[in-house]
Amino acid sequence: MESVDQFELSKEFLDRFGEAIEAEETSFIIESLNGVNPADVTALLHEFTSTQSKYVLSLLQLETTAEIINGLEADLRSKFLQNFSPLEISKFINELDSDDGADIINELPIKIREEVIEGIENQEKAANVLELLRYDEDCAGGLMAKELIKANVNWSIGKTIEEIRSQAENVQKVYAVYVVDDFDRLVGRVSLKKIVLAEDHMKVSSIYDNEVISVETYKEEEEIASIMRKYDLEALPVVNRQGKLLGRITIDDIVDVITELAEQERQLMAGITEDVEEDDSIWMLTRARLPWLVIGMLGGLLGALFMEAFEENITLTLTFFIPLIMATGGNVGIQSSSLIVQSLANKSAFTKTTYKRLWKVFWVAILNGLLLAALVFFGVQFLMGSGLTLALIVALSLLCVVLLASFMGTATPLLMDKFGINPALASGPFITTANDLLGLAVYFGVAHLLYSL
Amino acid sequence: MESVDQFELSKEFLDRFGEAIEAEETSFIIESLNGVNPADVTALLHEFTSTQSKYVLSLLQLETTAEIINGLEADLRSKFLQNFSPLEISKFINELDSDDGADIINELPIKIREEVIEGIENQEKAANVLELLRYDEDCAGGLMAKELIKANVNWSIGKTIEEIRSQAENVQKVYAVYVVDDFDRLVGRVSLKKIVLAEDHMKVSSIYDNEVISVETYKEEEEIASIMRKYDLEALPVVNRQGKLLGRITIDDIVDVITELAEQERQLMAGITEDVEEDDSIWMLTRARLPWLVIGMLGGLLGALFMEAFEENITLTLTFFIPLIMATGGNVGIQSSSLIVQSLANKSAFTKTTYKRLWKVFWVAILNGLLLAALVFFGVQFLMGSGLTLALIVALSLLCVVLLASFMGTATPLLMDKFGINPALASGPFITTANDLLGLAVYFGVAHLLYSL
Repeated sequence: MESVDQFELSKEFLDRFGEAIEAEETSFIIESLNGVNPADVTALLHEFTSTQSKYVLSLLQLETTAEIINGLEADLRSKFLQNFSPLEISKFINELDSDDGADIINELPIKIREEVIEGIENQEKAANVLELLRYDEDCAGGLMAKELIKANVNWSIGKTIEEIRSQAENVQKVYAVYVVDDFDRLVGRVSLKKIVLAEDHMKVSSIYDNEVISVETYKEEEEIASIMRKYDLEALPVVNRQGKLLGRITIDDIVDVITELAEQERQLMAGITEDVEEDDSIWMLTRARLPWLVIGMLGGLLGALFMEAFEENITLTLTFFIPLIMATGGNVGIQSSSLIVQSLANKSAFTKTTYKRLWKVFWVAILNGLLLAALVFFGVQFLMGSGLTLALIVALSLLCVVLLASFMGTATPLLMDKFGINPALASGPFITTANDLLGLAVYFGVAHLLYSL
Repeated sequence: MESVDQFELSKEFLDRFGEAIEAEETSFIIESLNGVNPADVTALLHEFTSTQSKYVLSLLQLETTAEIINGLEADLRSKFLQNFSPLEISKFINELDSDDGADIINELPIKIREEVIEGIENQEKAANVLELLRYDEDCAGGLMAKELIKANVNWSIGKTIEEIRSQAENVQKVYAVYVVDDFDRLVGRVSLKKIVLAEDHMKVSSIYDNEVISVETYKEEEEIASIMRKYDLEALPVVNRQGKLLGRITIDDIVDVITELAEQERQLMAGITEDVEEDDSIWMLTRARLPWLVIGMLGGLLGALFMEAFEENITLTLTFFIPLIMATGGNVGIQSSSLIVQSLANKSAFTKTTYKRLWKVFWVAILNGLLLAALVFFGVQFLMGSGLTLALIVALSLLCVVLLASFMGTATPLLMDKFGINPALASGPFITTANDLLGLAVYFGVAHLLYSL
């Protein structure tokens, strides 16, 4: 039994393995990787250079090598594959499922793609990969694998088992056999459990389940994830407009999609413009962070210009509360927008009207705003010993800012979603910068009004 | 074939369905729900009151009803189940997998739990549920279901198929048969595909795969999610210290875990203290948002006190740039912390040392800081026509703030993670409030220094 902790990358092992690579200790490398899960070897190779990794892979079997390359992160993989000839890449793809093969080809430079596809030995695989390249990567067509097992509704169970046997090598994970009619249209499914329990002479038509959930090729990945989650599916067949069975999407790919979407959202919320990770280069990290910082800075300069313009109406004491107004506006804005982002992500079957949403947000904002304004009113008066007017200005501005920031935080992601922009962008520096400026305007506006009374 | 779009909750259908409930049109309700997936009925019931839902469920078969209740959101379900007697709840649990049953019991008021467990008709199910209640909900023991199919390594395939037949009703989804020795210790697995293709007289020992990944009961859900994702597993067996097979975790539960963890992180980043959704009550939403707003407000008041204390050193013009300094500090802090949260979430096998991390963060901050400072220096001088000293003060403060905020944004989540606090908390209002105060202190400190030169 293999326990998951068995293969751990200790510093010692890593050092020893590095030495073995340098000294080309073939037998040590082969022995230590014997029986190790390809996913673990992938993690190991992330610690070495491309040339070192290539050497290690050259010692393993082609099938294992292909699995390991398949597990590499996309950006690393495209760099790594530069060390291989198109024909070598074709050999790896020959060993992989069509969807994984298509993903790899999509990452290759355009000029060698054709050569790689031509080099795929298995003609059916090559045709499948070619077909998948037609689809957008983020939709059902791009996520599906062509490898699946199907049976004609008129077949016997015995014939179906023969089909499973002949496809056994191509289809690693069989959850169910898809049932099609004479025109290859999906009409149902039979679970493997049922096939195990059935007699060979029985007909598929007598035991299959005709309630099978499927999607068409254009369905987007977010929707596929939510369907598979809702119905607890481990595989989802993909059909064309005519209902013809084209492929299937497996849950492992969707788990990756869900994780990537969460990561993408986190980066949008944090104002990071490129898909970067902590271990990317310093220059990449700087570049990914700079755009929003510059926008925030321009917002700050605009704020300064604005204050300069109202210089005569502003007293120094008034400026003491700028941090308070700005911070509250920012916090309220992010809270509001992230609640909207959350409900957009869990799209329920029945969505509320924008009007109802804003109405509710308004009431929550009124409640929060009144409580905060009351607290701040007493805080300013007693803690700071400032006059009544100042306390009133700060409290009233705070209430207005909470209301405005709530509205902005709700409306912006909804609008973005409508225009096809990822609404999580509205939970980041975008909403903060906008709210900062709005907060300043409200604050000095209220001050001007109350002082001139 | 059932297409996923077939059962759509249109406003018209919802109105019609509501009327049917009021008029107790039994036949209409039964007919429209006939063949509809329980997950879809669950979504439908979210639109009606508890009493209305109870009436609808009373018209359906017990097995379907149990599935529908199982699909309800936890908070809604515990409210909904208040309308049922303990014995009625026992009947639902009798139909469900042990892990789902245990989840439901965990949500019930403590005083009726015992009665519910005693009421479960199937004695084995009751014992299984009772066993699962011992484990923490967020670890492998709490996530696993007792339902699985196992075979002794010495059995024949024929006997194994008989075991599948006898368990077929209890175990809905069979991916593989787990292979155990005479002491019930997990030694391997046989995929259903292999069983379909094997002859009845063959021995399990001759075809089973002895490389099976398993976890012990105490393993935490984050780790389980990352294991199942890494190795593309649809089910993961759970063992005790002695290696005895106790249960299995299926991927559908882990997909839910991943989604919930992402939601939790989003709420922490947005400064929302309770698990709320847009459709919770106004009061709940207010309460969930208030704590961080108050903390942010107190930070703002502290800032005001601080500025008051330095009143003599502060000129009005100086305050024009408070928004700029604060906004940049906040943005940099959130960017830094979310990168750390991201790499903590994707814990690689080999983590960098804290020292190396801070060193890299320092360089990114220097680069970003210098670029921003240069931009702002020219911006202040030419755009605003302010003096050289002021431009220098703002630029220098900005550089310091970027450096400090980067450091805080990196160190805080790392520290939190070390103390077992969710590091995403550091990407929210916490880091913003701290950075605001820090930014003010740096700004006026630099101003004091440069003006007195």
